[in-house]
Amino acid sequence: MKFTITRATFIKKLNDVSRAISSKTTIPILTGLKLVLSDNGLVLTGSDADISIEARIDADSETNDLQIASTGSIVLPARIFNEVVKRLPDAKMTIDVQDNFQTVITSGSSEFTINGLDANNYPHLPEIVNPQPLQVPADVLKQLINQTVIAVSNQESRPILTGVHVVISDGQLLAVATDSHRLAQRTIELPAAADSQYDVIIPGKSLVELGRMLTDDIQTVEMRFAENQVLFVAGQTNFYSRLLEGNYPDTSRLIPTSSTTQIEFDAPALLAATQRASLLSHESSNNVVRLNLNAQDQSAVIYGNSPDVGNVEEALTFNSLAGDDLEISFNPDYMKDALQGFGQTTIEIDFTAPLRPFTLVPSEDHEHFIQLITPVRTF
Amino acid sequence: MKFTITRATFIKKLNDVSRAISSKTTIPILTGLKLVLSDNGLVLTGSDADISIEARIDADSETNDLQIASTGSIVLPARIFNEVVKRLPDAKMTIDVQDNFQTVITSGSSEFTINGLDANNYPHLPEIVNPQPLQVPADVLKQLINQTVIAVSNQESRPILTGVHVVISDGQLLAVATDSHRLAQRTIELPAAADSQYDVIIPGKSLVELGRMLTDDIQTVEMRFAENQVLFVAGQTNFYSRLLEGNYPDTSRLIPTSSTTQIEFDAPALLAATQRASLLSHESSNNVVRLNLNAQDQSAVIYGNSPDVGNVEEALTFNSLAGDDLEISFNPDYMKDALQGFGQTTIEIDFTAPLRPFTLVPSEDHEHFIQLITPVRTF
Repeated sequence: MKFTITRATFIKKLNDVSRAISSKTTIPILTGLKLVLSDNGLVLTGSDADISIEARIDADSETNDLQIASTGSIVLPARIFNEVVKRLPDAKMTIDVQDNFQTVITSGSSEFTINGLDANNYPHLPEIVNPQPLQVPADVLKQLINQTVIAVSNQESRPILTGVHVVISDGQLLAVATDSHRLAQRTIELPAAADSQYDVIIPGKSLVELGRMLTDDIQTVEMRFAENQVLFVAGQTNFYSRLLEGNYPDTSRLIPTSSTTQIEFDAPALLAATQRASLLSHESSNNVVRLNLNAQDQSAVIYGNSPDVGNVEEALTFNSLAGDDLEISFNPDYMKDALQGFGQTTIEIDFTAPLRPFTLVPSEDHEHFIQLITPVRTF
Repeated sequence: MKFTITRATFIKKLNDVSRAISSKTTIPILTGLKLVLSDNGLVLTGSDADISIEARIDADSETNDLQIASTGSIVLPARIFNEVVKRLPDAKMTIDVQDNFQTVITSGSSEFTINGLDANNYPHLPEIVNPQPLQVPADVLKQLINQTVIAVSNQESRPILTGVHVVISDGQLLAVATDSHRLAQRTIELPAAADSQYDVIIPGKSLVELGRMLTDDIQTVEMRFAENQVLFVAGQTNFYSRLLEGNYPDTSRLIPTSSTTQIEFDAPALLAATQRASLLSHESSNNVVRLNLNAQDQSAVIYGNSPDVGNVEEALTFNSLAGDDLEISFNPDYMKDALQGFGQTTIEIDFTAPLRPFTLVPSEDHEHFIQLITPVRTF
């Protein structure tokens, strides 16, 4: 295998696949980056067994500037190879695999010889052929990921809750995550997928990495499902994730259908006030803030307290407040995570009782996005 | 004590004094920030016992916008106070010390009550009156610091070497640091200080913090020395550091006066090549790179090697090379630190023998700045 390429082109793809490579893997060859060069072009692969990322550099593209001398394959130690490629002196570099998988990387007057490994020993990626792949706009998918992964559990005691439950049916994609203290649910319309039916659980960590990879230059993402894998195709990059096995709990009955107190906020203003209140609750052993709502006085006040450090009290600005008076306590970090998912918009919060979960929805659309937070008992 | 101030003004000063405040201090009150308000203005103080920083906000300055309601003093927990001030909703804030050192911070509709401490229990800073303070341009002092602190030892086994030796005599300031493997020496002319005589050792950590504080808006720094303290006055900020006690070793005889091989490089190009070579030496148990110089062939080649990972070889570009052939090995990190101190300039490296220290000086000025590196025996 021998080829010459513009370093900047290569580095962009290298960064993409490096997301999947961990130095902490139990399978030594997965600390490496696989390069496979055929007449069609170069394929870079990185994997940590849960996530695998494959990036293609096509041979026939003018901009890629890939000059192929001979085809072949190699696995190179990813961390050091990354550092070497990024520090090379010239705009171009040549990679030449010689005897015993010794790989010579030349650029300008600099010549590195790196010990590689046989690419035949690298695990194979699943082949996922799907008669009817689903198309999702990349920006919508990225937003859906950011809005739901916040509620994923990071505790391995109930592994199923470390994933996002994705259900596709009736031309809709529903994504829901809960760590049993809070829940985030987002629905998007997929008109072209009317007769597709899927019910899968995608690890939250996989979706976080996928979200980071979805840069603004990517328009559409194609989703393909197999037995225990999902493949996201974004431009020249394939992102594979294993699926979680098991039954996700039924979350639909957790969401209250009625409320006794309703308040409308600008999400960024409430976020800022919650952050201030959390400065003191974080100093306390129980990380809780209190909200007092009084419709008659038209007042909403948030309180944070730390016996050692002090306390904070802030009268909140809101758009409207109706219903029963309420005093409710909650973890401000759950509120902050939820509010960040709404961005620059107006939200409605619906309460039923001091110890019953409350919900946050965009004022403009109560159907497609909902965050639910379980309050904390403080008495 | 009660005052109102523009938050941005206060935050700038708060950032300055916070450099000195450590949460790891053994003196609990030093985790706090001291505020003293007099009719002249507000003084903020932070200290970790080694370094103390005092920042003044004058009452009579229009831009400071300090409105004094009543004078007084308080010590507030620095970390949480910092976070609170930075998150307040309004451009202005009011600080009001009430009974039992309870301090109320209001801004917009947000009201924090923080438990403060009696400022009378805060350690006093030394008074350093000096009949003839020394004036140094701030940019020159900052450069001097950056060029010398790199060679300071971080090992407490010889505490004296954790400082920079500063000698002022004959209208010159000489700063030298060595960790016994390398040495950095910088001299600056102080024409106005012809008859000042000082010989002190300033902790390297203090100088690093001072350097960070010297932003572009500061023109001149005034230096005042006392028995065991040095005070740097930069604009409205006083920076105190304790001095190290003991005798600094005589370093003047370490610097060779003759050489057998001389080579001239562009510092940034040699830095980049050394960084590349160090990628592989860092993977090896002995972090060493090798330089081969041959004046007859006019060749200079740098080598890095890791038995596990691979090796690198690079022909260096240089401006001139004269003298005996040489093969020499050294720690590339010392070379990188030294080269970073030169910036975008041409340097001369002078060698005598494979196991004798070699020196780096700017091509244009061999007198005022010198870096010395001791090679490593590899055979």
